[in-house]
Amino acid sequence: MQLSEQQLDRFETEGWLFLPEVFAPAEVGLLRAEADRVYALDREEIWRESSGVARTAFAAQTYNEAFARLGRHPRLVEPVMQILGGPVYMHQFKVNAKAAFDGDVWQWHQDYGTWARDDLMPEPRAMNIALFLDDVTAANGPLMIIPGSHRQGVFDAGHDLATTSYPLWTLDRETVTRLAEAGGIEAPTGPAGSVLMFHCNLVHASPPNISPFGRVIVYLSLCHVDNHIRRFKRPQWIAHRDFAPIDCLPDDCLLDLVHEGQAAE
Amino acid sequence: MQLSEQQLDRFETEGWLFLPEVFAPAEVGLLRAEADRVYALDREEIWRESSGVARTAFAAQTYNEAFARLGRHPRLVEPVMQILGGPVYMHQFKVNAKAAFDGDVWQWHQDYGTWARDDLMPEPRAMNIALFLDDVTAANGPLMIIPGSHRQGVFDAGHDLATTSYPLWTLDRETVTRLAEAGGIEAPTGPAGSVLMFHCNLVHASPPNISPFGRVIVYLSLCHVDNHIRRFKRPQWIAHRDFAPIDCLPDDCLLDLVHEGQAAE
Repeated sequence: MQLSEQQLDRFETEGWLFLPEVFAPAEVGLLRAEADRVYALDREEIWRESSGVARTAFAAQTYNEAFARLGRHPRLVEPVMQILGGPVYMHQFKVNAKAAFDGDVWQWHQDYGTWARDDLMPEPRAMNIALFLDDVTAANGPLMIIPGSHRQGVFDAGHDLATTSYPLWTLDRETVTRLAEAGGIEAPTGPAGSVLMFHCNLVHASPPNISPFGRVIVYLSLCHVDNHIRRFKRPQWIAHRDFAPIDCLPDDCLLDLVHEGQAAE
Repeated sequence: MQLSEQQLDRFETEGWLFLPEVFAPAEVGLLRAEADRVYALDREEIWRESSGVARTAFAAQTYNEAFARLGRHPRLVEPVMQILGGPVYMHQFKVNAKAAFDGDVWQWHQDYGTWARDDLMPEPRAMNIALFLDDVTAANGPLMIIPGSHRQGVFDAGHDLATTSYPLWTLDRETVTRLAEAGGIEAPTGPAGSVLMFHCNLVHASPPNISPFGRVIVYLSLCHVDNHIRRFKRPQWIAHRDFAPIDCLPDDCLLDLVHEGQAAE
Protein backbone atom coordinates (compact mmCIF):
# COMPACT_ATOMS: atom_id res chain seq x y z
CA MET A 1 0.00 0.00 0.00
CA GLN A 2 1.58 3.25 -1.18
CA LEU A 3 0.23 6.76 -0.58
CA SER A 4 -0.18 9.01 -3.61
CA GLU A 5 1.62 12.35 -4.04
CA GLN A 6 -1.70 14.05 -3.35
CA GLN A 7 -2.11 12.14 -0.09
CA LEU A 8 1.45 12.96 0.96
CA ASP A 9 0.85 16.66 0.24
CA ARG A 10 -2.37 16.60 2.18
CA PHE A 11 -0.69 14.91 5.14
CA GLU A 12 2.01 17.58 5.18
CA THR A 13 -0.56 20.42 5.14
CA GLU A 14 -3.36 18.99 7.26
CA GLY A 15 -1.45 16.54 9.44
CA TRP A 16 -3.83 13.62 8.95
CA LEU A 17 -5.29 11.18 6.42
CA PHE A 18 -8.40 9.01 6.69
CA LEU A 19 -8.51 5.79 4.66
CA PRO A 20 -11.88 4.03 4.81
CA GLU A 21 -12.18 0.24 5.01
CA VAL A 22 -8.53 -0.74 4.62
CA PHE A 23 -9.05 -4.00 6.55
CA ALA A 24 -11.67 -6.61 5.68
CA PRO A 25 -14.50 -7.64 8.03
CA ALA A 26 -12.85 -11.03 8.70
CA GLU A 27 -9.62 -9.33 9.81
CA VAL A 28 -11.48 -6.81 11.95
CA GLY A 29 -13.68 -9.51 13.48
CA LEU A 30 -10.62 -11.47 14.59
CA LEU A 31 -8.96 -8.43 16.15
CA ARG A 32 -12.17 -7.25 17.86
CA ALA A 33 -12.61 -10.63 19.55
CA GLU A 34 -8.94 -10.62 20.57
CA ALA A 35 -9.36 -7.13 22.05
CA ASP A 36 -12.05 -8.47 24.39
CA ARG A 37 -9.78 -11.35 25.38
CA VAL A 38 -6.96 -8.91 26.09
CA TYR A 39 -9.19 -6.62 28.20
CA ALA A 40 -10.21 -9.62 30.31
CA LEU A 41 -6.57 -10.32 31.25
CA ASP A 42 -5.26 -9.35 34.65
CA ARG A 43 -2.02 -7.63 33.58
CA GLU A 44 -0.34 -4.36 34.51
CA GLU A 45 -0.40 -3.27 30.86
CA ILE A 46 -4.22 -3.00 30.95
CA TRP A 47 -5.11 0.47 32.21
CA ARG A 48 -8.64 0.77 33.63
CA GLU A 49 -11.13 3.64 33.97
CA SER A 50 -12.02 4.67 37.51
CA SER A 51 -15.19 2.55 36.99
CA GLY A 52 -13.00 -0.54 36.44
CA VAL A 53 -13.67 -1.14 32.72
CA ALA A 54 -10.67 -1.25 30.40
CA ARG A 55 -9.43 2.12 29.08
CA THR A 56 -6.40 1.00 27.10
CA ALA A 57 -4.25 -2.10 26.73
CA PHE A 58 -0.59 -1.27 26.21
CA ALA A 59 1.86 -3.48 24.31
CA ALA A 60 -0.71 -6.11 23.29
CA GLN A 61 1.59 -6.95 20.37
CA THR A 62 3.95 -8.53 22.92
CA TYR A 63 1.44 -10.97 24.43
CA ASN A 64 -1.24 -11.58 21.76
CA GLU A 65 -0.57 -13.23 18.41
CA ALA A 66 -3.20 -11.31 16.40
CA PHE A 67 -1.93 -7.94 17.63
CA ALA A 68 1.67 -9.10 17.11
CA ARG A 69 0.81 -9.60 13.44
CA LEU A 70 -1.05 -6.31 13.25
CA GLY A 71 2.05 -4.55 14.60
CA ARG A 72 3.99 -5.85 11.58
CA HIS A 73 1.21 -5.42 9.03
CA PRO A 74 2.32 -3.86 5.74
CA ARG A 75 -0.95 -1.93 5.36
CA LEU A 76 -0.06 0.01 8.53
CA VAL A 77 3.73 0.04 8.63
CA GLU A 78 4.57 0.76 4.98
CA PRO A 79 2.63 4.03 4.60
CA VAL A 80 4.32 5.29 7.77
CA MET A 81 7.77 4.30 6.44
CA GLN A 82 6.88 6.22 3.30
CA ILE A 83 6.02 9.39 5.24
CA LEU A 84 8.93 9.14 7.71
CA GLY A 85 11.35 8.24 4.94
CA GLY A 86 12.95 5.06 6.25
CA PRO A 87 12.78 2.13 8.64
CA VAL A 88 10.61 2.48 11.74
CA TYR A 89 10.36 0.82 15.15
CA MET A 90 7.35 0.49 17.44
CA HIS A 91 7.47 3.20 20.10
CA GLN A 92 4.03 2.50 21.56
CA PHE A 93 1.09 0.18 20.87
CA LYS A 94 -2.34 0.79 22.40
CA VAL A 95 -5.72 -0.90 22.08
CA ASN A 96 -8.00 1.92 23.26
CA ALA A 97 -11.45 0.83 24.42
CA LYS A 98 -13.72 3.87 24.94
CA ALA A 99 -16.18 1.48 26.58
CA ALA A 100 -19.95 1.83 26.25
CA PHE A 101 -21.33 4.27 28.87
CA ASP A 102 -18.04 4.37 30.86
CA GLY A 103 -15.40 5.30 28.28
CA ASP A 104 -13.89 8.52 29.56
CA VAL A 105 -12.41 11.60 27.91
CA TRP A 106 -8.89 11.89 26.49
CA GLN A 107 -8.06 15.55 27.03
CA TRP A 108 -6.59 17.82 24.30
CA HIS A 109 -2.94 16.90 23.76
CA GLN A 110 -0.09 16.23 21.34
CA ASP A 111 1.51 12.79 21.51
CA TYR A 112 4.97 14.08 20.71
CA GLY A 113 4.70 16.47 23.65
CA THR A 114 4.73 13.44 25.93
CA TRP A 115 7.32 11.53 23.94
CA ALA A 116 9.69 14.51 24.00
CA ARG A 117 9.17 15.43 27.67
CA ASP A 118 9.01 11.95 29.20
CA ASP A 119 11.02 9.82 26.78
CA LEU A 120 13.47 12.34 25.24
CA MET A 121 12.54 11.43 21.68
CA PRO A 122 14.80 13.83 19.72
CA GLU A 123 12.55 14.94 16.83
CA PRO A 124 8.89 14.62 15.78
CA ARG A 125 9.92 11.94 13.28
CA ALA A 126 7.22 9.59 14.55
CA MET A 127 3.50 9.29 14.01
CA ASN A 128 0.32 7.37 14.74
CA ILE A 129 -1.60 5.04 12.52
CA ALA A 130 -4.91 3.87 13.97
CA LEU A 131 -7.27 1.07 12.96
CA PHE A 132 -10.98 1.22 13.86
CA LEU A 133 -12.17 -2.14 15.25
CA ASP A 134 -15.74 -0.83 15.63
CA ASP A 135 -17.77 1.58 13.56
CA VAL A 136 -16.88 5.05 14.80
CA THR A 137 -19.82 7.47 14.77
CA ALA A 138 -20.72 10.87 16.15
CA ALA A 139 -22.43 8.95 18.96
CA ASN A 140 -19.65 6.82 20.47
CA GLY A 141 -16.88 9.23 21.34
CA PRO A 142 -15.02 9.77 18.06
CA LEU A 143 -11.47 11.09 17.96
CA MET A 144 -11.36 14.84 17.34
CA ILE A 145 -8.43 16.49 15.59
CA ILE A 146 -7.46 20.06 14.77
CA PRO A 147 -6.23 20.11 11.16
CA GLY A 148 -2.95 21.95 10.63
CA SER A 149 -2.15 22.10 14.35
CA HIS A 150 0.99 19.98 13.80
CA ARG A 151 2.87 22.80 12.08
CA GLN A 152 3.68 24.92 15.14
CA GLY A 153 5.86 22.51 17.08
CA VAL A 154 5.25 21.48 20.66
CA PHE A 155 2.96 23.67 22.75
CA ASP A 156 3.28 24.24 26.48
CA ALA A 157 1.34 21.68 28.42
CA GLY A 158 0.39 20.86 31.97
CA HIS A 159 0.56 17.40 33.50
CA ASP A 160 -3.08 16.53 34.20
CA LEU A 161 -3.17 13.88 36.95
CA ALA A 162 -6.78 14.46 38.00
CA THR A 163 -9.23 14.35 35.10
CA THR A 164 -8.99 10.66 34.23
CA SER A 165 -7.27 7.55 35.51
CA TYR A 166 -4.37 8.13 33.08
CA PRO A 167 -1.87 11.03 33.52
CA LEU A 168 -1.49 13.16 30.40
CA TRP A 169 0.33 16.32 29.29
CA THR A 170 -2.61 18.49 28.20
CA LEU A 171 -2.98 21.82 26.40
CA ASP A 172 -4.69 24.85 27.92
CA ARG A 173 -8.05 26.12 26.68
CA GLU A 174 -6.66 29.29 25.12
CA THR A 175 -4.28 27.31 22.88
CA VAL A 176 -6.95 24.81 21.84
CA THR A 177 -9.41 27.62 21.08
CA ARG A 178 -6.87 29.57 19.02
CA LEU A 179 -5.89 26.50 16.99
CA ALA A 180 -9.50 25.40 16.42
CA GLU A 181 -10.53 28.88 15.30
CA ALA A 182 -7.80 28.66 12.66
CA GLY A 183 -8.15 25.04 11.60
CA GLY A 184 -11.60 23.94 12.72
CA ILE A 185 -12.22 20.53 14.26
CA GLU A 186 -12.69 17.27 12.39
CA ALA A 187 -14.10 14.11 13.93
CA PRO A 188 -13.26 11.35 11.42
CA THR A 189 -15.99 8.72 11.51
CA GLY A 190 -16.39 5.57 9.45
CA PRO A 191 -16.87 1.83 9.46
CA ALA A 192 -14.76 -0.71 11.31
CA GLY A 193 -11.65 -1.49 9.26
CA SER A 194 -10.94 2.16 8.46
CA VAL A 195 -7.52 3.66 9.11
CA LEU A 196 -6.59 7.10 10.44
CA MET A 197 -3.00 8.39 10.22
CA PHE A 198 -1.88 11.52 12.02
CA HIS A 199 1.25 13.51 12.75
CA CYS A 200 2.67 13.18 16.26
CA ASN A 201 2.25 16.93 16.83
CA LEU A 202 -1.38 17.02 15.71
CA VAL A 203 -3.59 18.27 18.57
CA HIS A 204 -6.35 15.78 19.35
CA ALA A 205 -8.81 14.62 22.01
CA SER A 206 -11.85 12.39 22.39
CA PRO A 207 -15.00 12.89 24.44
CA PRO A 208 -16.59 10.43 26.85
CA ASN A 209 -18.71 7.70 25.29
CA ILE A 210 -22.22 7.86 26.76
CA SER A 211 -23.66 5.50 24.12
CA PRO A 212 -24.32 1.78 24.63
CA PHE A 213 -21.85 0.99 21.84
CA GLY A 214 -18.17 0.42 22.60
CA ARG A 215 -15.53 1.82 20.28
CA VAL A 216 -12.16 0.08 20.07
CA ILE A 217 -9.32 1.71 18.11
CA VAL A 218 -5.78 0.29 17.88
CA TYR A 219 -2.97 2.87 17.78
CA LEU A 220 0.47 2.06 16.44
CA SER A 221 2.96 4.81 17.28
CA LEU A 222 5.86 4.31 14.91
CA CYS A 223 9.18 6.17 15.06
CA HIS A 224 12.08 6.39 12.63
CA VAL A 225 14.82 4.09 13.97
CA ASP A 226 17.37 6.96 14.02
CA ASN A 227 15.00 8.95 16.24
CA HIS A 228 14.63 6.43 19.08
CA ILE A 229 14.01 7.63 22.62
CA ARG A 230 16.97 8.51 24.84
CA ARG A 231 15.43 8.25 28.31
CA PHE A 232 13.84 5.18 29.87
CA LYS A 233 11.73 6.76 32.57
CA ARG A 234 8.38 5.18 31.72
CA PRO A 235 7.79 1.41 31.85
CA GLN A 236 9.04 -0.39 28.76
CA TRP A 237 5.47 -1.58 28.03
CA ILE A 238 4.42 2.07 27.61
CA ALA A 239 7.53 3.41 25.79
CA HIS A 240 9.26 0.52 24.07
CA ARG A 241 13.05 0.04 24.00
CA ASP A 242 13.43 -2.34 21.07
CA PHE A 243 14.64 -0.05 18.30
CA ALA A 244 15.09 -2.74 15.66
CA PRO A 245 13.37 -1.92 12.36
CA ILE A 246 10.00 -3.58 11.89
CA ASP A 247 10.14 -6.35 9.32
CA CYS A 248 6.71 -6.46 7.68
CA LEU A 249 4.74 -9.70 7.35
CA PRO A 250 2.84 -10.66 4.20
CA ASP A 251 -0.41 -8.82 3.50
CA ASP A 252 -2.49 -11.92 4.34
CA CYS A 253 -0.91 -12.51 7.76
CA LEU A 254 -4.16 -11.81 9.60
CA LEU A 255 -6.31 -13.78 7.18
CA ASP A 256 -3.99 -16.73 7.73
CA LEU A 257 -4.73 -16.53 11.42
CA VAL A 258 -8.47 -16.37 10.71
CA HIS A 259 -8.18 -19.52 8.63
CA GLU A 260 -6.06 -21.28 11.26
CA GLY A 261 -8.76 -20.49 13.82
CA GLN A 262 -11.46 -21.85 11.55
CA ALA A 263 -9.44 -25.01 10.85
CA ALA A 264 -9.00 -25.57 14.59
CA GLU A 265 -12.72 -25.37 15.34
CA MET B 1 -44.68 25.40 6.39
CA GLN B 2 -46.51 22.10 6.01
CA LEU B 3 -45.02 18.63 6.40
CA SER B 4 -45.57 16.16 3.55
CA GLU B 5 -47.37 12.84 3.93
CA GLN B 6 -43.99 11.14 3.64
CA GLN B 7 -42.59 13.26 6.47
CA LEU B 8 -45.62 12.56 8.66
CA ASP B 9 -45.25 8.81 8.04
CA ARG B 10 -41.58 8.96 8.84
CA PHE B 11 -42.24 10.85 12.07
CA GLU B 12 -44.76 8.23 13.15
CA THR B 13 -42.31 5.37 12.50
CA GLU B 14 -39.00 6.91 13.51
CA GLY B 15 -40.16 9.51 16.01
CA TRP B 16 -38.08 12.37 14.61
CA LEU B 17 -37.53 14.63 11.58
CA PHE B 18 -34.52 16.77 10.69
CA LEU B 19 -35.10 19.84 8.52
CA PRO B 20 -31.87 21.57 7.47
CA GLU B 21 -31.57 25.37 7.30
CA VAL B 22 -35.15 26.37 8.04
CA PHE B 23 -34.09 29.73 9.47
CA ALA B 24 -31.89 32.25 7.64
CA PRO B 25 -28.48 33.40 8.89
CA ALA B 26 -29.87 36.85 9.82
CA GLU B 27 -32.56 35.27 12.01
CA VAL B 28 -30.10 32.88 13.62
CA GLY B 29 -27.54 35.64 14.18
CA LEU B 30 -30.11 37.71 16.07
CA LEU B 31 -31.16 34.80 18.28
CA ARG B 32 -27.57 33.70 18.96
CA ALA B 33 -26.65 37.18 20.19
CA GLU B 34 -29.81 37.29 22.32
CA ALA B 35 -28.90 33.90 23.82
CA ASP B 36 -25.62 35.35 25.07
CA ARG B 37 -27.49 38.33 26.54
CA VAL B 38 -29.89 35.97 28.28
CA TYR B 39 -27.10 33.80 29.71
CA ALA B 40 -25.49 36.94 31.17
CA LEU B 41 -28.64 37.74 33.18
CA ASP B 42 -28.81 37.03 36.89
CA ARG B 43 -32.20 35.27 37.00
CA GLU B 44 -33.47 32.11 38.66
CA GLU B 45 -34.55 30.76 35.26
CA ILE B 46 -30.89 30.45 34.15
CA TRP B 47 -29.62 27.06 35.30
CA ARG B 48 -25.82 26.80 35.54
CA GLU B 49 -23.32 23.94 35.26
CA SER B 50 -21.33 23.14 38.38
CA SER B 51 -18.51 25.18 36.75
CA GLY B 52 -20.79 28.24 36.72
CA VAL B 53 -21.36 28.60 32.95
CA ALA B 54 -24.94 28.59 31.71
CA ARG B 55 -26.50 25.16 31.08
CA THR B 56 -30.02 26.18 30.10
CA ALA B 57 -32.21 29.28 30.20
CA PHE B 58 -35.84 28.45 30.95
CA ALA B 59 -38.78 30.55 29.77
CA ALA B 60 -36.70 33.06 27.81
CA GLN B 61 -39.82 33.74 25.71
CA THR B 62 -41.26 35.52 28.77
CA TYR B 63 -38.41 38.02 29.24
CA ASN B 64 -36.74 38.40 25.82
CA GLU B 65 -38.44 39.85 22.75
CA ALA B 66 -36.58 37.77 20.15
CA PHE B 67 -37.35 34.50 21.94
CA ALA B 68 -40.95 35.66 22.51
CA ARG B 69 -41.30 35.90 18.75
CA LEU B 70 -39.55 32.57 18.20
CA GLY B 71 -42.07 30.96 20.57
CA ARG B 72 -44.86 32.07 18.23
CA HIS B 73 -43.03 31.44 14.99
CA PRO B 74 -45.11 29.68 12.32
CA ARG B 75 -42.12 27.69 11.06
CA LEU B 76 -41.93 25.97 14.46
CA VAL B 77 -45.50 26.00 15.76
CA GLU B 78 -47.44 25.05 12.63
CA PRO B 79 -45.69 21.72 11.86
CA VAL B 80 -46.28 20.70 15.49
CA MET B 81 -49.98 21.63 15.26
CA GLN B 82 -50.10 19.50 12.14
CA ILE B 83 -48.63 16.46 13.93
CA LEU B 84 -50.62 16.90 17.16
CA GLY B 85 -53.81 17.67 15.24
CA GLY B 86 -54.95 20.93 16.78
CA PRO B 87 -54.04 24.02 18.80
CA VAL B 88 -51.00 23.86 21.07
CA TYR B 89 -49.70 25.74 24.09
CA MET B 90 -46.13 26.19 25.28
CA HIS B 91 -45.37 23.66 28.01
CA GLN B 92 -41.65 24.42 28.26
CA PHE B 93 -39.12 26.65 26.52
CA LYS B 94 -35.37 26.11 26.92
CA VAL B 95 -32.28 27.71 25.43
CA ASN B 96 -29.71 24.96 26.01
CA ALA B 97 -26.09 26.09 25.95
CA LYS B 98 -23.74 23.08 25.91
CA ALA B 99 -20.91 25.54 26.51
CA ALA B 100 -17.44 25.13 25.03
CA PHE B 101 -15.27 22.86 27.24
CA ASP B 102 -17.76 22.94 30.17
CA GLY B 103 -21.07 21.85 28.63
CA ASP B 104 -22.06 18.75 30.56
CA VAL B 105 -23.96 15.58 29.67
CA TRP B 106 -27.74 15.24 29.45
CA GLN B 107 -28.32 11.64 30.47
CA TRP B 108 -30.56 9.19 28.52
CA HIS B 109 -34.20 10.11 29.11
CA GLN B 110 -37.67 10.66 27.68
CA ASP B 111 -39.17 14.11 28.12
CA TYR B 112 -42.69 12.81 28.55
CA GLY B 113 -41.47 10.62 31.41
CA THR B 114 -40.80 13.81 33.36
CA TRP B 115 -43.91 15.61 32.17
CA ALA B 116 -46.11 12.67 33.18
CA ARG B 117 -44.45 12.01 36.55
CA ASP B 118 -43.84 15.57 37.70
CA ASP B 119 -46.54 17.55 35.90
CA LEU B 120 -49.32 14.96 35.40
CA MET B 121 -49.58 15.62 31.69
CA PRO B 122 -52.32 13.12 30.71
CA GLU B 123 -51.09 11.79 27.35
CA PRO B 124 -47.97 11.98 25.15
CA ARG B 125 -49.77 14.51 22.92
CA ALA B 126 -46.83 16.89 23.13
CA MET B 127 -43.47 17.12 21.42
CA ASN B 128 -40.25 19.05 20.96
CA ILE B 129 -39.16 21.20 18.10
CA ALA B 130 -35.58 22.42 18.33
CA LEU B 131 -33.69 25.12 16.45
CA PHE B 132 -29.89 25.00 16.14
CA LEU B 133 -28.34 28.43 16.84
CA ASP B 134 -24.82 27.10 16.15
CA ASP B 135 -23.53 24.53 13.71
CA VAL B 136 -23.95 21.17 15.40
CA THR B 137 -21.16 18.73 14.60
CA ALA B 138 -19.83 15.41 15.85
CA ALA B 139 -17.33 17.51 17.83
CA ASN B 140 -19.51 19.76 19.99
CA GLY B 141 -21.85 17.45 21.87
CA PRO B 142 -24.64 16.71 19.39
CA LEU B 143 -28.01 15.43 20.53
CA MET B 144 -28.28 11.63 20.23
CA ILE B 145 -31.58 9.91 19.62
CA ILE B 146 -32.72 6.29 19.39
CA PRO B 147 -35.03 6.03 16.37
CA GLY B 148 -38.30 4.20 17.03
CA SER B 149 -37.87 4.30 20.81
CA HIS B 150 -41.04 6.41 21.15
CA ARG B 151 -43.34 3.50 20.32
CA GLN B 152 -43.12 1.60 23.61
CA GLY B 153 -44.59 4.18 25.98
CA VAL B 154 -42.89 5.43 29.11
CA PHE B 155 -40.03 3.36 30.51
CA ASP B 156 -39.15 3.05 34.16
CA ALA B 157 -36.70 5.73 35.21
CA GLY B 158 -34.69 6.76 38.21
CA HIS B 159 -34.40 10.33 39.48
CA ASP B 160 -30.73 11.21 38.90
CA LEU B 161 -29.81 14.01 41.30
CA ALA B 162 -26.05 13.45 41.18
CA THR B 163 -24.64 13.34 37.64
CA THR B 164 -25.20 16.97 36.65
CA SER B 165 -26.44 20.19 38.22
CA TYR B 166 -29.97 19.48 36.88
CA PRO B 167 -32.16 16.65 38.28
CA LEU B 168 -33.49 14.32 35.59
CA TRP B 169 -35.54 11.10 35.33
CA THR B 170 -33.08 8.84 33.52
CA LEU B 171 -33.25 5.39 31.94
CA ASP B 172 -31.12 2.46 33.03
CA ARG B 173 -28.31 1.07 30.88
CA GLU B 174 -30.09 -2.18 30.08
CA THR B 175 -33.08 -0.34 28.58
CA VAL B 176 -30.90 2.06 26.57
CA THR B 177 -28.79 -0.83 25.27
CA ARG B 178 -31.83 -2.90 24.26
CA LEU B 179 -33.45 0.06 22.43
CA ALA B 180 -30.21 1.06 20.68
CA GLU B 181 -29.54 -2.49 19.54
CA ALA B 182 -32.98 -2.43 17.89
CA GLY B 183 -33.04 1.12 16.52
CA GLY B 184 -29.42 2.26 16.39
CA ILE B 185 -28.38 5.74 17.43
CA GLU B 186 -28.57 8.86 15.30
CA ALA B 187 -26.76 12.11 16.07
CA PRO B 188 -28.40 14.70 13.79
CA THR B 189 -25.82 17.29 12.81
CA GLY B 190 -26.12 20.29 10.54
CA PRO B 191 -25.68 24.02 10.15
CA ALA B 192 -27.13 26.71 12.38
CA GLY B 193 -30.73 27.39 11.38
CA SER B 194 -31.62 23.70 11.11
CA VAL B 195 -34.64 22.27 12.91
CA LEU B 196 -35.08 18.94 14.69
CA MET B 197 -38.53 17.69 15.70
CA PHE B 198 -38.99 14.70 17.97
CA HIS B 199 -41.69 12.80 19.80
CA CYS B 200 -41.93 13.38 23.56
CA ASN B 201 -41.31 9.69 24.22
CA LEU B 202 -38.21 9.47 22.01
CA VAL B 203 -35.20 8.39 24.08
CA HIS B 204 -32.36 10.90 23.78
CA ALA B 205 -29.20 12.21 25.44
CA SER B 206 -26.24 14.43 24.69
CA PRO B 207 -22.58 14.02 25.64
CA PRO B 208 -20.34 16.61 27.25
CA ASN B 209 -18.86 19.22 24.91
CA ILE B 210 -15.06 19.12 25.18
CA SER B 211 -14.56 21.28 22.09
CA PRO B 212 -13.81 25.03 22.10
CA PHE B 213 -17.05 25.65 20.18
CA GLY B 214 -20.31 26.28 22.04
CA ARG B 215 -23.53 24.77 20.78
CA VAL B 216 -26.80 26.54 21.55
CA ILE B 217 -30.10 24.81 20.71
CA VAL B 218 -33.54 26.25 21.51
CA TYR B 219 -36.20 23.71 22.49
CA LEU B 220 -39.91 24.47 22.26
CA SER B 221 -41.97 21.81 24.03
CA LEU B 222 -45.48 22.17 22.67
CA CYS B 223 -48.56 20.38 23.99
CA HIS B 224 -52.08 20.02 22.63
CA VAL B 225 -54.26 22.45 24.62
CA ASP B 226 -56.63 19.62 25.67
CA ASN B 227 -53.67 17.76 27.14
CA HIS B 228 -52.46 20.45 29.53
CA ILE B 229 -50.72 19.50 32.76
CA ARG B 230 -52.80 18.80 35.86
CA ARG B 231 -50.25 19.29 38.65
CA PHE B 232 -48.28 22.45 39.42
CA LYS B 233 -45.41 21.01 41.41
CA ARG B 234 -42.52 22.49 39.42
CA PRO B 235 -41.96 26.25 39.09
CA GLN B 236 -44.15 27.86 36.45
CA TRP B 237 -41.01 28.94 34.56
CA ILE B 238 -40.11 25.25 34.08
CA ALA B 239 -43.61 23.84 33.43
CA HIS B 240 -45.83 26.64 32.16
CA ARG B 241 -49.43 27.15 33.25
CA ASP B 242 -50.75 29.34 30.44
CA PHE B 243 -52.76 26.87 28.36
CA ALA B 244 -54.06 29.39 25.81
CA PRO B 245 -53.46 28.31 22.21
CA ILE B 246 -50.43 29.91 20.58
CA ASP B 247 -51.41 32.49 18.01
CA CYS B 248 -48.68 32.46 15.35
CA LEU B 249 -46.97 35.63 14.21
CA PRO B 250 -46.16 36.37 10.55
CA ASP B 251 -43.28 34.45 8.98
CA ASP B 252 -41.08 37.58 8.91
CA CYS B 253 -41.50 38.42 12.61
CA LEU B 254 -37.82 37.80 13.37
CA LEU B 255 -36.56 39.57 10.27
CA ASP B 256 -38.64 42.59 11.32
CA LEU B 257 -36.74 42.62 14.60
CA VAL B 258 -33.41 42.36 12.75
CA HIS B 259 -34.37 45.37 10.65
CA GLU B 260 -35.56 47.34 13.68
CA GLY B 261 -32.18 46.71 15.29
CA GLN B 262 -30.33 47.84 12.18
CA ALA B 263 -32.50 51.00 11.93
CA ALA B 264 -31.71 51.84 15.56
CA GLU B 265 -27.94 51.64 15.06
